[in-house]
Amino acid sequence: MDISLELIKGIAHPSPTKIVLLVIDGLGGLPNPETGKTELATANTPNLDKLAAKGICGLTDPVAPGITPGSSPGHLALFGYNPVTFNIGRGVLEAIGIDFDPQPADVAARGNFCTVDKAGLVTDRRAGRISTEKCAELCQLLDGLAVENIEIFVRPVREHRFVVVFRGDDLVPAVTDSDPQQVGVAPMVIIAIRPEAGRTASIANQFVTQAKTILAEYHPANMILLRGFSQRPHFPTMGEVYKLRPAAIAGYPMYRGLAKLIGMEILETGTTIEDEFTTLRQNYSNYDFFFLHVKGADSAGEDGDFNRKVRVIAEIDNALSELISMEPDVIVVTGDHSTPALLRGHSWHPVPTLLYSKWCRPDKVSAFSESACLSGGLGRFPATQIMPLAMANALKLTKFGA
Amino acid sequence: MDISLELIKGIAHPSPTKIVLLVIDGLGGLPNPETGKTELATANTPNLDKLAAKGICGLTDPVAPGITPGSSPGHLALFGYNPVTFNIGRGVLEAIGIDFDPQPADVAARGNFCTVDKAGLVTDRRAGRISTEKCAELCQLLDGLAVENIEIFVRPVREHRFVVVFRGDDLVPAVTDSDPQQVGVAPMVIIAIRPEAGRTASIANQFVTQAKTILAEYHPANMILLRGFSQRPHFPTMGEVYKLRPAAIAGYPMYRGLAKLIGMEILETGTTIEDEFTTLRQNYSNYDFFFLHVKGADSAGEDGDFNRKVRVIAEIDNALSELISMEPDVIVVTGDHSTPALLRGHSWHPVPTLLYSKWCRPDKVSAFSESACLSGGLGRFPATQIMPLAMANALKLTKFGA
Repeated sequence: MDISLELIKGIAHPSPTKIVLLVIDGLGGLPNPETGKTELATANTPNLDKLAAKGICGLTDPVAPGITPGSSPGHLALFGYNPVTFNIGRGVLEAIGIDFDPQPADVAARGNFCTVDKAGLVTDRRAGRISTEKCAELCQLLDGLAVENIEIFVRPVREHRFVVVFRGDDLVPAVTDSDPQQVGVAPMVIIAIRPEAGRTASIANQFVTQAKTILAEYHPANMILLRGFSQRPHFPTMGEVYKLRPAAIAGYPMYRGLAKLIGMEILETGTTIEDEFTTLRQNYSNYDFFFLHVKGADSAGEDGDFNRKVRVIAEIDNALSELISMEPDVIVVTGDHSTPALLRGHSWHPVPTLLYSKWCRPDKVSAFSESACLSGGLGRFPATQIMPLAMANALKLTKFGA
Repeated sequence: MDISLELIKGIAHPSPTKIVLLVIDGLGGLPNPETGKTELATANTPNLDKLAAKGICGLTDPVAPGITPGSSPGHLALFGYNPVTFNIGRGVLEAIGIDFDPQPADVAARGNFCTVDKAGLVTDRRAGRISTEKCAELCQLLDGLAVENIEIFVRPVREHRFVVVFRGDDLVPAVTDSDPQQVGVAPMVIIAIRPEAGRTASIANQFVTQAKTILAEYHPANMILLRGFSQRPHFPTMGEVYKLRPAAIAGYPMYRGLAKLIGMEILETGTTIEDEFTTLRQNYSNYDFFFLHVKGADSAGEDGDFNRKVRVIAEIDNALSELISMEPDVIVVTGDHSTPALLRGHSWHPVPTLLYSKWCRPDKVSAFSESACLSGGLGRFPATQIMPLAMANALKLTKFGA
């Protein structure tokens, strides 16, 4: 059963207790055929095991059983926002993730620099993964172009990825992608899905044409692909819903952007796990909810590097001493989805989840792993229920009904 | 997943089999830090353990994980009525709670005696929590007033709390509260939320003015605050939905009132557990569904009295021999929510639940406790599914679809 934010909003109240939500991106895995153990089960995790023993464990489905979530739905679920209902366009997500603050009327799209051959067919959708520096240089060539009084902002993201934001009157994001999602074909013409988006499609196509001309001599980045045209959605903030003062600590832009969209304060931090925990300590007294995001486990999983994922998890466990010493009222450790190294990508497998608080009803789980969580007291449950559970354990929810 | 009453209604049929739903109010608990055992795990419960061994067990969420239910939503869920959809106004609930039977056209509100200063500002929303006797005395001063041919009933509840019921033509409960929910401000004027409620608002305001005059010299209870104006809701009855002849055995008015609201026959009974089981035996042949409510475990939990809660549970277990000897086709034992003595109040923790019938598929659970239920065959599930399960085990549901 999915509990609506309206219900929670009606019973949430501010309190001095503190919640830390530690998201180990891509946490869940699959057993290594040689050992029969997943990445998490393989890693040496004395701190996580201690928390699991004192707390309550379970397995979460970010979207639903069988559904492999992208990073955005995976995280929205963790924040209690049903990812099927609360939808964010890819363009907007990328824009917010690089601290570009799209205005409500802006239309944003995600861009790739790509390689096309002389016939105009895509030969590499990522232009050989050019460096972030090169990407920034090329973005400067395109940034500030204008089509029919529409301002166009082009900003680098990482490697071959960039964001384009169209600003002006009457823009409508209901247009198709130009990215064909395959090589050997030409980039697609952008088409309006609704009649009122005709002008927006035309402007986007004119921009692509200009970009092609400008980039002609910049092989391998001699063309662009756009997708995910979208506008900034209006979501209720975590402050409104949960009456929390929430802060986000995340090394990667995407997660900061997502957090910002639901009203979290973004704390400046470094790139290592230790940096993130230091940021937590420095800001600990100023907020009552912390979303702490660690990316490394997902990246290792996506690279198919089982052992590196094991090492990242062990490294996080090591840094956990710092968090535990701060004695937050509620600690939740989970992931936004599974990323088994064996699958080299996100997967649908439910995510090991532990909740520690003084008020949880402990189960018999004494180690933090997929198989141990299977017999945990939280059972298998939708990830959207993590926030209500964390709020309840922090004694931040009053009774529902009399 | 919530099974809608419509679906059940379509497949339910009358039969001679009998279901007993034993509700141990506030059943679930938290471990005593000294022993690591909850109230239920501590209590000596040979009968419950025997039923658990022969039957099937699980853990229920009355509303949803993390949500602490009030008594009313907790019970509606047990009767199969989704407590988020089936909503009872506060005024009506209070009226029901004192055995005042609101007529369909009545409008009821919950009242507080409060203290106002010379400027008319609220200084104490609860008038120093006057005694229930004092409250009864003051209610008599206000009971029987009339405004514009509207009869007004005023009845004491407990301490500073009372119920006011307006009876007459064309009353509409869509009006705001007069209770400002804070001190230092004046009581609010009651305002119509919908145009047709204008006269009701005016009548309520006139009543408040009369009350203020009458109470002027009764400091600290020199004013009243009203909230939760509401009418008796129209819920489908258990007879309509389940084709049952249901009866309720409950020592406390609130639970009788809730049962009445969904069409249960209310059986007169005494105040002890033995009284309730005797009532059950005396009426056993006349009904095919019995809701038997025992309050003591919740009261002990709310008082933070771990040992008394243990004793109440053991006492219920002892009385169970009587129930078992009647050989009902289905016995369900559960609670409307958890009330851990450690938390001194209702909580969000899932509720141990057992179902015994000839036709259940037994699991390996051989004792009735929170941790034992965790590995039970019913798993963790919404409390609204208890009734469909009980009906199925009583062979009172036909196939769904062909």
